[in-house]
Amino acid sequence: MTDTAVPGPYETLRWEAADDGILTLTLHRPEALNAFTVTMAHELEHAFRRVNTDDSVAAVVVTGAGRAFCAGMDLSREGNVFGLDESIAPTLDDVRSRLDAPEIADGVRDTGGRVALAIYDCTKPVIAAINGPAVGIGATMTLPMDVRIASTAARIGFVFGRLGIVPEACSSWFLPRLVGVSRALEWTYAADILSPAEALDGGLLRSVVEPEALLDTAYELARRFVTGRSRVATALTRQMMWRSSAQPHPIEAHRIDSLAMWWTSVHDGKEGVAAFAEKRSPSFTSSASRDLPEWLPWD
Amino acid sequence: MTDTAVPGPYETLRWEAADDGILTLTLHRPEALNAFTVTMAHELEHAFRRVNTDDSVAAVVVTGAGRAFCAGMDLSREGNVFGLDESIAPTLDDVRSRLDAPEIADGVRDTGGRVALAIYDCTKPVIAAINGPAVGIGATMTLPMDVRIASTAARIGFVFGRLGIVPEACSSWFLPRLVGVSRALEWTYAADILSPAEALDGGLLRSVVEPEALLDTAYELARRFVTGRSRVATALTRQMMWRSSAQPHPIEAHRIDSLAMWWTSVHDGKEGVAAFAEKRSPSFTSSASRDLPEWLPWD
Amino acid sequence: MTDTAVPGPYETLRWEAADDGILTLTLHRPEALNAFTVTMAHELEHAFRRVNTDDSVAAVVVTGAGRAFCAGMDLSREGNVFGLDESIAPTLDDVRSRLDAPEIADGVRDTGGRVALAIYDCTKPVIAAINGPAVGIGATMTLPMDVRIASTAARIGFVFGRLGIVPEACSSWFLPRLVGVSRALEWTYAADILSPAEALDGGLLRSVVEPEALLDTAYELARRFVTGRSRVATALTRQMMWRSSAQPHPIEAHRIDSLAMWWTSVHDGKEGVAAFAEKRSPSFTSSASRDLPEWLPWD
Repeated sequence: MTDTAVPGPYETLRWEAADDGILTLTLHRPEALNAFTVTMAHELEHAFRRVNTDDSVAAVVVTGAGRAFCAGMDLSREGNVFGLDESIAPTLDDVRSRLDAPEIADGVRDTGGRVALAIYDCTKPVIAAINGPAVGIGATMTLPMDVRIASTAARIGFVFGRLGIVPEACSSWFLPRLVGVSRALEWTYAADILSPAEALDGGLLRSVVEPEALLDTAYELARRFVTGRSRVATALTRQMMWRSSAQPHPIEAHRIDSLAMWWTSVHDGKEGVAAFAEKRSPSFTSSASRDLPEWLPWD
Repeated sequence: MTDTAVPGPYETLRWEAADDGILTLTLHRPEALNAFTVTMAHELEHAFRRVNTDDSVAAVVVTGAGRAFCAGMDLSREGNVFGLDESIAPTLDDVRSRLDAPEIADGVRDTGGRVALAIYDCTKPVIAAINGPAVGIGATMTLPMDVRIASTAARIGFVFGRLGIVPEACSSWFLPRLVGVSRALEWTYAADILSPAEALDGGLLRSVVEPEALLDTAYELARRFVTGRSRVATALTRQMMWRSSAQPHPIEAHRIDSLAMWWTSVHDGKEGVAAFAEKRSPSFTSSASRDLPEWLPWD
Repeated sequence: MTDTAVPGPYETLRWEAADDGILTLTLHRPEALNAFTVTMAHELEHAFRRVNTDDSVAAVVVTGAGRAFCAGMDLSREGNVFGLDESIAPTLDDVRSRLDAPEIADGVRDTGGRVALAIYDCTKPVIAAINGPAVGIGATMTLPMDVRIASTAARIGFVFGRLGIVPEACSSWFLPRLVGVSRALEWTYAADILSPAEALDGGLLRSVVEPEALLDTAYELARRFVTGRSRVATALTRQMMWRSSAQPHPIEAHRIDSLAMWWTSVHDGKEGVAAFAEKRSPSFTSSASRDLPEWLPWD
């Protein structure tokens, strides 16, 4: 995959950037219910890192081509998690101290987790538009997205237990934060397929709409998130909310808040205050590719 | 501002302590919709630290004078965040290692965050009685309070995005803990003004009442929190719930629990058990100014 | 208490393992409303550690004998928290650096917390079937269980404040994670007895059923959690959800996910994928006593 100015072409994704700054990223293996492959993992990582540097993108909507969102790991293909090399025998020290060593990175690291971390690091709002079945990695890849909207045709399953394996894609970090640890355990122990109503009731989804309204609902929300907004303030807000809330003390938030408020106040904040004083709409000019502070992302 | 035995007078606050131990702290710049100034920040920090040492105060109710709770940062005044010195150019290391150095403390530290941390460190229950618009810092300053009650006239807005700046006052730590990260992001991205019903539905508010019932509802709850209660046990409970739940492992809670249970058992706990055995109401005598353990607050 | 192959006999518990792998652990001091004693603490710790090594147990249902679940600390007996040695005067350093030193372990460590940590470390699903009053430690001991189901006869009270003491059993870590910090503070400040409806509304309970349906509901859920499931994958899933979600960054989950996915993929996962391909039910064979990785539990 070359890193050209025009994204792609991707084998497994469609990248469609609209004039209003909303990128539609479509999982695109409709003949296989968009099942997840190693290629799709690499392309999703690539696409989300590209989102951060492409000023034509203000927000991302992720959906699936055809009738599924993503039917989970493609078990019919080479290179999935079940092709792992048994001789590696990774230790706790291996994954803590040399996660990027080639035999650990290629032979042990969960591909879904790499995608989840790329989405976590995204500096633009990300909305999941779940159009149909989202199972296994198809469900867990949506957890680092900011908001999940589903159509009434969606079905969501954390079904790892049926295969004798564990939930992945950092979902043990994300899912309890979204729905509470009791529900996260019930859903993963039972490994059932959830209806949209169950997922909505559990707090996983923001809303459920008719299939024909799904993308418009997602686009409308995305536009509300970015129209008339500072790209830099939005990027910092996303990273602050995800990162600070997991820290052991609010002083960590205070440090980053202070830095980020200083940064935005001497950039787009000036226009914001001037526009407020003049009772007009602000015209923010910052770029998420050029104007983000060098301390983003912080540890 | 001198630290006299009789609090105040404050320029921007009213401090009214009732005989039942309930302090009403009123944001008091009604001519400016109680907009937040640097003076108000300093006075709130001072007031919340004073609450901790004043034995006449058992709990705090915070409300606003006139028709607003707090309309946000007073953009018409000097010294607000938009008067920041652009030459400071703070680094991540600055805010991590020398947050209290004068040029960082005065030129970078978010004033709302200083207030939030003072409320976080409070050893008495704190209830927000949101009587009207609570916007920007007017919204975020309520997040470290224990419970938020609103009148039907309240409007709550995390509107920082409209000004091209980021949420502050440690709200990236508090807001996702209260309403979940998805809703916290939606509310800050969209920067809308929330109705009381929306804020209640999202879990930000405990309850919504008619305007004329707001303060009585808050006072009634505050009395339930402190009548017949040990001041020391209440102080420790508040700090334990906020602090322990953010730790990475329950063993941290076990350590503090054990210490705090030992401490209260050899103090007010004796009277509590005696009263229980004798089927009478306990008469607790501990003082939050004299009888708190020296390890409070712990890191 | 000897560590024999046949559990018990316990003085305060009943251990009843059924053929389907569901262990019923019954708090059994019905003449005292199953009030908590130091013996019960030791027996609960013992029982939960035994659950981890007993392959005949797949999941645990905890309930109370007679009309109560657990009426709290037995204040009529020796050795409860109110018999603490006042001369110890523990410091923060004591509980941080030498929690297991005899005078700290015996004289300061909260017995309820020791039980909570044993439940936290459990490698099988744990369901609380709250059949009647659950007060004090009777309420807090259920918090590290995965799911709480209550009968309409249940009453739940975090009543420590009435006795002038603090909540214990690591509840300052668990309760805010389950119901949010605002509700956790309201419930502990007010120290009221909650109805099942209030506890359900607050998110503490999964569901409320008629008394005669309580155990069957719990058993049915437990069976859904373990039938056709890998013991090793279930053990890892439980520990991952509780532990990872409290970490400050999802990279921690990614490390453990990757290790756990590798481990399960080269064990029961092979059968899972084969069964999926052959459209048959899997037959998992792993043992939670022999086949767990040595890195469990991780720090």
